[in-house]
Amino acid sequence: MAEPKKADTLKPRLPRGLVDRRADEIAAQGRMLETIRASFELYGFEALETPFIEYTEALGKFLPDLDRPNEGVFSFQDDDESWLSLRYDLTAPLARHVAENFDALPKPYRSFRNGYVFRNEKPGPGRFRQFMQFDADIVGAASVAADAEICMLMADTLDKLGLAGQYVVKVNNRKVLDGVMEAIGLSGPDKAGQRLTVLRAIDKLDRLGAEGVRLLLGPGRKDESGDFTKGAGLDEAAISRILAYVSFQAAPTGEGDRIAFWDQFFGSWSDVVGDSETGREGIAELHVMMRLCEAAGYGFDRIRADPSVVRGLEYYTGPVYEAELTFPVTNEAGETVRFGSVAGGGRYDGLVGRFRAEPVPATGFSIGVSRLFSALQLTGSPLLQGKAKPGPVVVLVLDRENIADYQRLVALLRAENIRAELYLGGSGMKAQMKYADRRGSPCAIIQGSNEREAGEVQIKDLIEGAKAAEGISSNAEWKAARPAQFSVKEDEMVARVKEVLARHF
Amino acid sequence: MAEPKKADTLKPRLPRGLVDRRADEIAAQGRMLETIRASFELYGFEALETPFIEYTEALGKFLPDLDRPNEGVFSFQDDDESWLSLRYDLTAPLARHVAENFDALPKPYRSFRNGYVFRNEKPGPGRFRQFMQFDADIVGAASVAADAEICMLMADTLDKLGLAGQYVVKVNNRKVLDGVMEAIGLSGPDKAGQRLTVLRAIDKLDRLGAEGVRLLLGPGRKDESGDFTKGAGLDEAAISRILAYVSFQAAPTGEGDRIAFWDQFFGSWSDVVGDSETGREGIAELHVMMRLCEAAGYGFDRIRADPSVVRGLEYYTGPVYEAELTFPVTNEAGETVRFGSVAGGGRYDGLVGRFRAEPVPATGFSIGVSRLFSALQLTGSPLLQGKAKPGPVVVLVLDRENIADYQRLVALLRAENIRAELYLGGSGMKAQMKYADRRGSPCAIIQGSNEREAGEVQIKDLIEGAKAAEGISSNAEWKAARPAQFSVKEDEMVARVKEVLARHF
Repeated sequence: MAEPKKADTLKPRLPRGLVDRRADEIAAQGRMLETIRASFELYGFEALETPFIEYTEALGKFLPDLDRPNEGVFSFQDDDESWLSLRYDLTAPLARHVAENFDALPKPYRSFRNGYVFRNEKPGPGRFRQFMQFDADIVGAASVAADAEICMLMADTLDKLGLAGQYVVKVNNRKVLDGVMEAIGLSGPDKAGQRLTVLRAIDKLDRLGAEGVRLLLGPGRKDESGDFTKGAGLDEAAISRILAYVSFQAAPTGEGDRIAFWDQFFGSWSDVVGDSETGREGIAELHVMMRLCEAAGYGFDRIRADPSVVRGLEYYTGPVYEAELTFPVTNEAGETVRFGSVAGGGRYDGLVGRFRAEPVPATGFSIGVSRLFSALQLTGSPLLQGKAKPGPVVVLVLDRENIADYQRLVALLRAENIRAELYLGGSGMKAQMKYADRRGSPCAIIQGSNEREAGEVQIKDLIEGAKAAEGISSNAEWKAARPAQFSVKEDEMVARVKEVLARHF
Repeated sequence: MAEPKKADTLKPRLPRGLVDRRADEIAAQGRMLETIRASFELYGFEALETPFIEYTEALGKFLPDLDRPNEGVFSFQDDDESWLSLRYDLTAPLARHVAENFDALPKPYRSFRNGYVFRNEKPGPGRFRQFMQFDADIVGAASVAADAEICMLMADTLDKLGLAGQYVVKVNNRKVLDGVMEAIGLSGPDKAGQRLTVLRAIDKLDRLGAEGVRLLLGPGRKDESGDFTKGAGLDEAAISRILAYVSFQAAPTGEGDRIAFWDQFFGSWSDVVGDSETGREGIAELHVMMRLCEAAGYGFDRIRADPSVVRGLEYYTGPVYEAELTFPVTNEAGETVRFGSVAGGGRYDGLVGRFRAEPVPATGFSIGVSRLFSALQLTGSPLLQGKAKPGPVVVLVLDRENIADYQRLVALLRAENIRAELYLGGSGMKAQMKYADRRGSPCAIIQGSNEREAGEVQIKDLIEGAKAAEGISSNAEWKAARPAQFSVKEDEMVARVKEVLARHF
């Protein structure tokens, strides 16, 4: 191995936006992932795993009009000069997989994927350059019944994670948004940039309120720090129309007929899209989705239409949806806000079609695993705590020349499936006991020369001992009492250790 | 998203040396990984996860005398120009983690890690550019008792995977190899290149036999294809000494005293290392390890000293070990050979020390997950088969305008934890039944207008039906009998589906 370049002693450090994870967090997150997996399987989805590296062109991550990849992805050239990138999400690799294996897959194809994705972006608090997503997608189903299923899956999964009553799945449709744009004269390919500015302005409704969005739709907005964001330059009539549209919040009162409620609610939408065919189609799709969700028992409190949902990605072509956690948290500025989005997605009928002559309809969503994990931590989820697991029984090493004997004691414990280890460091008795404490050991096994000659070992119950220590004030008193420590014959060791474990776990 | 550059329709494909994995393989490998994890935990090891990206210098992967990374790793520059690489193994990231968190970790620190690593090398059959490793390491234990524990862990883990009697853990010590080199005059930093050539020659003993190794130690060797490999250029006396050394194969007969056997076996080694202090130290360490393993009940058939074990990595400083599967397989050339190595490792006392002033002893091993998985497939391991899991119950869609009703039936099944889905495609009845077959459905739910009016559904038992179909010869006969299909009231549907499931799973 080559020597390091920069210094004789390297500084051990991780690049920014990357983190290590220790055993407790891995176990807690594992339980959360397992709950999600079971929920996705119940809906008939099947696991798929794709590699971390793809051709950059398969990810659609080339810069416009340039032969090099977008800076947002980590990229490198293969030995034949073709560009490779670390996957940016789990959707583009699915599209590649489906196109590559089209005839071999059942259609509709329900797939779930779980794994890390990479963003070559500036990291910040809660923003990492490697983070985990958990996705479910249905490919080959053009019906909005598929989108409705995805929304129900989002709701059921959050219920199973113990978040019932603390979330809402908000649904909108890009075609409605397109219809609104058309009605205010923003259609056609030459207006694509302006449309994106409008979508991004609407997307900020939660954060900036109606007045902030009004500025972003019109002349532009200066924030507290003095930074100016260029506006979409719409006239007052257009701005009012958009603000009127996004203010349509569904708020049924009482326990009336919800199907009838939705019929009435969408009745009032048709004005905002005017004569736009696309807009009317979008409203009809959203209406069908709400009827399907209601009929399957997913009420307004769990899944509902919301005109302010936009979703940032450009490739969505129909329904878009977002799961928002509604409980309050305090943000960095000290304000009380809703926890916000933990999952989102939509219909992307063009993505698989990039690889094939015919279009392939598809819809799906992605859970932000780290954000969801933070939410479960905040709500004190019992799922994350799990069942306490004992640390290893530590066999101390008193005479180094008898290490084979100590090793034999360890083997006896392990043979009975008791987590156990030999102390392998070079320190004395006191440090060994400290090590056992640090490892969360339920008990330590001690054998000095006296015990060995008598064919005995000492078992020290560290959990009982810690409790007893609270009531003992002096070292001398401790030595006289030696609470929670007892001698047993070697051939009784395993049975007695099992008793200690049974007492505490 | 930018449009693809090269063609209107992209070819969907993966870069060479990368693969997708489907549900069956993911589940089977998951069971194997779970067995390994439980085995490592029993030994007191704890999970750790590090990110996929590290500073290239932290991996020690700079080319000698050059400021750019080794071609064997995937590398890219960060926005501050520093080089980043995808991890090449799980050992270098552990060394970085331990150095970075030294004071916070218990010592000795027992850690296990599982995940993909990346090699920017030419892929071939069974050689991937992304592959999985499962590692266990003990950091901060200088004693060879730690190396003995690692060897026992390797043996126990293979036992738990159902490979008892089909493996051997072979152990050697780099210091012995160094001693042999010293004895033939190959010591000192200027001979490092020649020593590496000698180690690589010994490493080929299994494949080339003694005569092949003799050529590689001497003038060099031409293989069948005519390619010439340069030799180490040793003289006849040196070659004989090395060949004599690697021929020391431990082969105790009968059930005699194994401790005494090892005493006698190592007695005959001292000659080959001559006066080399290092060599004698290595023999003594290996001897202690064999005594410890024997005392803990790991006999010669499971763990044994073998002078031909070398291990390719340059950073090993003491004991090296390798788990070899001994059952025969047919190689690409049609020859019967042993399956070979599935795991290996050794002591690397210098690796953490690259980051710190004081040395930090460490030892550990790595399982090649894909190779081990292939081995379990070859041996027909029941672990990989697992318990058969039913596909989803498929609710067919006969009248599209009643889709909300079908969705409600699906919701009823899922509420009782029965894996179920709505058919979401656009095809007719026949294609829907074919889809259900393809998904491995235990039964399909069918509701036409007649059944709906009567408040009933048809349950079609697809497993029973497939059996019955074998005894029916004509379509007419089938229609008359309609085996394994029955009507039930809607409110009995869940209970009757449960009966079908209980019958088959």
